[in-house]
Amino acid sequence: MSGDITNNIEALKVNATEHDDDVVDPWTVTSTKDTGVDYDKLIKRFGCSKIDQELLDRFERVTGKKVHHLLRRGIFFSHRDMHLILTNYEAGKPFYLYTGRGPSSSSMHVGHLIPFQICKWLQEVFNVPLVIQLTDDEKSLWKNLTIEEANRLAYENAKDIIAIGFDPDKTFIFSDFDYFGQRPQFYRNLVEIQKHVTFNQVKGIFGFDDSTIIGKIAFPAVQATPCLSTSFPDIFGNKKIQCFIPCAIDQDPYFRMTRDIAPKLGFPKPALILSKFFPALQGAQTKMSASDPNSTIYCNDTPKQVKNKINKYAFSGGQATIEEHRKLGGNCDVDISYQYLRFFIEDDEKLEQIKKDYSSGAMLTGELKKILIETLTPLVQEHQKRRAEVTDEILKQFVTPRKLNFDY
Amino acid sequence: MSGDITNNIEALKVNATEHDDDVVDPWTVTSTKDTGVDYDKLIKRFGCSKIDQELLDRFERVTGKKVHHLLRRGIFFSHRDMHLILTNYEAGKPFYLYTGRGPSSSSMHVGHLIPFQICKWLQEVFNVPLVIQLTDDEKSLWKNLTIEEANRLAYENAKDIIAIGFDPDKTFIFSDFDYFGQRPQFYRNLVEIQKHVTFNQVKGIFGFDDSTIIGKIAFPAVQATPCLSTSFPDIFGNKKIQCFIPCAIDQDPYFRMTRDIAPKLGFPKPALILSKFFPALQGAQTKMSASDPNSTIYCNDTPKQVKNKINKYAFSGGQATIEEHRKLGGNCDVDISYQYLRFFIEDDEKLEQIKKDYSSGAMLTGELKKILIETLTPLVQEHQKRRAEVTDEILKQFVTPRKLNFDY
Repeated sequence: MSGDITNNIEALKVNATEHDDDVVDPWTVTSTKDTGVDYDKLIKRFGCSKIDQELLDRFERVTGKKVHHLLRRGIFFSHRDMHLILTNYEAGKPFYLYTGRGPSSSSMHVGHLIPFQICKWLQEVFNVPLVIQLTDDEKSLWKNLTIEEANRLAYENAKDIIAIGFDPDKTFIFSDFDYFGQRPQFYRNLVEIQKHVTFNQVKGIFGFDDSTIIGKIAFPAVQATPCLSTSFPDIFGNKKIQCFIPCAIDQDPYFRMTRDIAPKLGFPKPALILSKFFPALQGAQTKMSASDPNSTIYCNDTPKQVKNKINKYAFSGGQATIEEHRKLGGNCDVDISYQYLRFFIEDDEKLEQIKKDYSSGAMLTGELKKILIETLTPLVQEHQKRRAEVTDEILKQFVTPRKLNFDY
Repeated sequence: MSGDITNNIEALKVNATEHDDDVVDPWTVTSTKDTGVDYDKLIKRFGCSKIDQELLDRFERVTGKKVHHLLRRGIFFSHRDMHLILTNYEAGKPFYLYTGRGPSSSSMHVGHLIPFQICKWLQEVFNVPLVIQLTDDEKSLWKNLTIEEANRLAYENAKDIIAIGFDPDKTFIFSDFDYFGQRPQFYRNLVEIQKHVTFNQVKGIFGFDDSTIIGKIAFPAVQATPCLSTSFPDIFGNKKIQCFIPCAIDQDPYFRMTRDIAPKLGFPKPALILSKFFPALQGAQTKMSASDPNSTIYCNDTPKQVKNKINKYAFSGGQATIEEHRKLGGNCDVDISYQYLRFFIEDDEKLEQIKKDYSSGAMLTGELKKILIETLTPLVQEHQKRRAEVTDEILKQFVTPRKLNFDY
């Protein structure tokens, strides 16, 4: 899984000319609008469904839990077959969670934590296994990375993921470069998928062309393979179990493809919930770039870096002068400090009060930034503390193919 | 590796229209001429070199061994960098043999033994490791075979290969479906290769088009991977060692591609010796078809089947009547019994005498067929006896990734 490769010119052309100015595919996310990508249009283009109030109400009814703030604020805003997951849960039918990460820098940023935070919460609500794919092969194919470096980054990122607090009895994390060599069934399922996808199809879905290397052409099947539960014989034996994927919407093309193929192989179509993008400090026009350390807050930033970056770079929805701001108020829709708080403040009332105060002009940009600094600094520091406790021994435990604490 | 798939229409078109009536690629070999494929033209088209007398003389000088009858009769007729192999051998520089088999029916035919017979001989002459790839993945992708069935056939064929008499201390046999899951380095080397090949290139080399499934597009890299010695860490550690491939010339496209890539990855280009095709009993216009049991002699045929097939189907170069035959003589160039004898009779003088007698009309077609029956019947029976002795335990020994009796 990826999200920060920006040189796929063909995909860009296909996207931009056929639809509008937003470009959204697994390697490119750009928008010319200061409020970012038009997600309603994207839902129509991708053919997925909106997560509406009725679905959220049903979620709460079925699980007896208040839905996560990332869901109730519409950050996870779209889905495929989420109703089916709830129906399975009601009927006691098993399913498992699957998400991934394309390791591209030795530290993850706070936006990278989002899909894992919802995974952790969903895992606790439903009590199901979670598999996490580290696509070091993808990163080696798309980025100018050696296999060794991509593989090293995979395990660096795994430590950050483990620090989020997953249960090793219920969670399996794997690097593609290593897991292929550990369980033959993974390559077998890959070939089964590759039998059912033509070049025409990946050309249409991913914008490949004749000059694309065959490693990239083959890769979409690698990301599809964990959707087939038999790829994890230690966990699922040879049972064909429903897969449920939380991820950012730029990954949807992979799973749209997989949903076409899975039934042909006798597997259920994977269900999905899809999130909006985490914006760069500089504004919602672009998703952040891993190559620019100032474009967001990293999990290994010092308190000083957090403070300086937010004060210096966080795009403001405030007015040019204090006087004007007091009179006209700030614009939360484009203000990155406020947008970040939507991801990280759980308390709805507190967030609503901030919005009210900033919009009315009662709260100044400096005050809003201070709240964000005070929110992210402990979050990042606690993360660093937990990550420091992830020993190589603990890492090994998570990445060793093994039976989890479930019976199938 | 393959050689008997016949429905690659696009490749057929590319081949036939651009060059002449011969079609030679890894999945199709056809010729309209009764003497079969024009190999001189093929050498030019493929850009490989002819094995000439000078090379054979050097081989004998360097090794102190008389060259194998398959070489001295021009059945292995072409090469790439064979001189380099001899130079390495003279200098004491290591290399290894690599060949393969696309398992497609539970018994191999006598023509399938040819590349393995030369491998065995070369292994004995040079005392080098041999790796044998069973491309069950290829067969599953191209033929209508389940993964389980292709994998089963791989091990059936492995037993036939072992029956040829390989030394388990020097030989490693592997199924792609299994070896991928046993050593991570195999997938890593695959990705390295897939990074360096575009769709344009495989389109040109293998006749793929936009409707080709991505499994086929990815596959040429799978057959290239054993050319990188580090794909076998148990045998070679991480040493980059010269690879030497004996195979039929229809497999050359894979290795032409590999020779372009290997130096970019710091590996030597694989060297090759390439054989002509083993003809069908019915004549040299086509390579035999695995789906027609009467098109050649199978390793598990009974003496009665051998006799009947040869008497009934072996295309004759003889004349229409005994009187005419005595007067005009037979044509050894198209006579399949004679052509088969060239593969299986080691004694040059005996073969020459047969040719003389048949060409002069002194020997009748029935007499020639009788010689072939008397040559193949014990060959097939002894093979069956040796194959029956290949227990699952012995099979397991050959297919277990392990250090061989060489130090690197």
